Amino acid sequence: MTLDLSLLPDGGMPWITASGPHADIVLSSRVRLARNLSGFPFSPRAGDAERLRVLHQVREAAADTALLSRAILLRVDELTTGERHLLHERHLVSRELAELDAPTARSGSAVLVGDEAALMVNEEDHLRLQVFRSGFDIAGAWERAAQLERELGERLPLAYHHEFGFLTSCPTNVGTGLRASVLVHLPGLVLTQEIGKVLTGLQQMGLTYRGLYGEGSEVVGNFFQISNQTTLGRTEDELCDHLARVVAHVISRESEARRVLSRDAGYIIEDKLWRAYGTLRYARSLGADEAMNLLSGVRLAVGMYLIGGLSVYTLNKLLVFSQAAHLSLAEGRPLTEIEANLARARYVRGVLAVEAGEA
Amino acid sequence: MTLDLSLLPDGGMPWITASGPHADIVLSSRVRLARNLSGFPFSPRAGDAERLRVLHQVREAAADTALLSRAILLRVDELTTGERHLLHERHLVSRELAELDAPTARSGSAVLVGDEAALMVNEEDHLRLQVFRSGFDIAGAWERAAQLERELGERLPLAYHHEFGFLTSCPTNVGTGLRASVLVHLPGLVLTQEIGKVLTGLQQMGLTYRGLYGEGSEVVGNFFQISNQTTLGRTEDELCDHLARVVAHVISRESEARRVLSRDAGYIIEDKLWRAYGTLRYARSLGADEAMNLLSGVRLAVGMYLIGGLSVYTLNKLLVFSQAAHLSLAEGRPLTEIEANLARARYVRGVLAVEAGEA
Repeated sequence: MTLDLSLLPDGGMPWITASGPHADIVLSSRVRLARNLSGFPFSPRAGDAERLRVLHQVREAAADTALLSRAILLRVDELTTGERHLLHERHLVSRELAELDAPTARSGSAVLVGDEAALMVNEEDHLRLQVFRSGFDIAGAWERAAQLERELGERLPLAYHHEFGFLTSCPTNVGTGLRASVLVHLPGLVLTQEIGKVLTGLQQMGLTYRGLYGEGSEVVGNFFQISNQTTLGRTEDELCDHLARVVAHVISRESEARRVLSRDAGYIIEDKLWRAYGTLRYARSLGADEAMNLLSGVRLAVGMYLIGGLSVYTLNKLLVFSQAAHLSLAEGRPLTEIEANLARARYVRGVLAVEAGEA
Repeated sequence: MTLDLSLLPDGGMPWITASGPHADIVLSSRVRLARNLSGFPFSPRAGDAERLRVLHQVREAAADTALLSRAILLRVDELTTGERHLLHERHLVSRELAELDAPTARSGSAVLVGDEAALMVNEEDHLRLQVFRSGFDIAGAWERAAQLERELGERLPLAYHHEFGFLTSCPTNVGTGLRASVLVHLPGLVLTQEIGKVLTGLQQMGLTYRGLYGEGSEVVGNFFQISNQTTLGRTEDELCDHLARVVAHVISRESEARRVLSRDAGYIIEDKLWRAYGTLRYARSLGADEAMNLLSGVRLAVGMYLIGGLSVYTLNKLLVFSQAAHLSLAEGRPLTEIEANLARARYVRGVLAVEAGEA
């Protein structure tokens, strides 16, 4: 199976356009629902034949839904490691699916990618449906996810317990099976050193934070994924509302921090951010983390109106497409780290030169 | 007195054009001759009236010479500190003349600036004539200096002792009164860590090295001034020949070091130098030493054909005009260090944008 990404509008990333509210601070809002089919063992314990039957049933059901009727099916079990990593870099499959060492042992793992929603099949749960929205729009993501879930539920026997709610492979997801999250960029709070307080506050409000790539990923480039920690004992609306209220507060804290930086460290911060831009424009080798950090600086500069003529859409694209698996696929071969660093610098330079009208 | 630099072709810096041999490695070749008039105390011990009489006589004599007949007279004793520093940044007056705290106490100190030669009057010696040439051209500098000295000697009673030679205020200059020097850029030898050996070798050959601004100045940006240490016991031709032979060897060592860097550290060095260019293109604040170091990197990149479309002439100009006194004069007022750093970054950005065809 060859991955033809040209079939996916914006490469399966509707959030990348930066067209949503507060897109300079919030990259994306996501709602994910975990569901399982009754009558089958959970995916990790299911045999190949069972997993393939799950995939077959889910596929049929999805074809009848508004959000996934025209979705593309990607058989993760048939993709190369590089292709799976690429899907992970786009947040379309989990790290777990990307890291599979023996794809045959996981036959039936797949992802359906639609314009607005994606559906992982045979990951930790039989179904992991997710909706991404650009900017700060948890309600919009939840609305679409709920609609998709309703349509699937009408066609599939979802495992549900009257007391626990939806049953999931891992008990931390039981109940609503919902994880709502926002990917936020908080360089202002990092630079003013207020980030510690804000993160502690989040945890006290029952939320949690992670790096750009979810569970177990480090925070790089001042990008934080904030999400609900519990899935049980509250309704989906309550969970989403609560997250939205707290994130709205974080956004205002970040905006305030940027005002303070402008006022108290004007030329110092301006100099720092323009230097980041200069390095991205001309470096011949860029490490993955370094590129992320420099892009973070330029993103802040654009948000503070210090650098003009550069869109957040372009910066979002750079963030995704400058990652190792994307570079490998673009070059048509696996790359060593040194080669990837050279390819990354070349790619970033090219995009920024075009954006500056110089190429 | 107001300093009208527009009267000076290339601002009194014929060497800046980078038109001479090996101009990518050798910025300038200079021959300086120290002379005194008999019948007057040395300048540091002379009274105001004597100093003014010296200036008067020198001026009359210079008007009859080929190299200084159309020279501009700058009365250093009437210039502001800023203007004097500016002349020092152009290597037209010594640090000593620039640092004068009480200009009236040094009445009669002046510099005659011609197209090809300059003549300081009433510095440590009554006359300090110097000829700068672009690139590696000690013979050319010596030839013109000798001609000027002959013409002046025919019109002025130069203090000469049959045994010691020309008498000078400081015994280290006695004899020929000659200092021949080349300003070389040796980043290749610094990066390959061979510079220590080369500098030790110079000293063993009776030469000495200093920073960009001569005696007591630190080495910044890998710019070294190499000159003869002794002035006595050899003829001027011998001193110049010896320096030229050793410098020719240093140039070949530097070229070899650059080849080694290209071969062994290709993309690493390319990346480093392009980053320097990126910082110069976009930084909002640049310290004096930092700018010098970054310009040094870009100069190396141009010499190694890694960066095109940028002339060594422009880099020479940036080196001189981005210094504090030049920036102050351009802004029309004294600048604090922070202001100078901002002005420096603005100036460098502007010049490089023009050179890149973007402004």
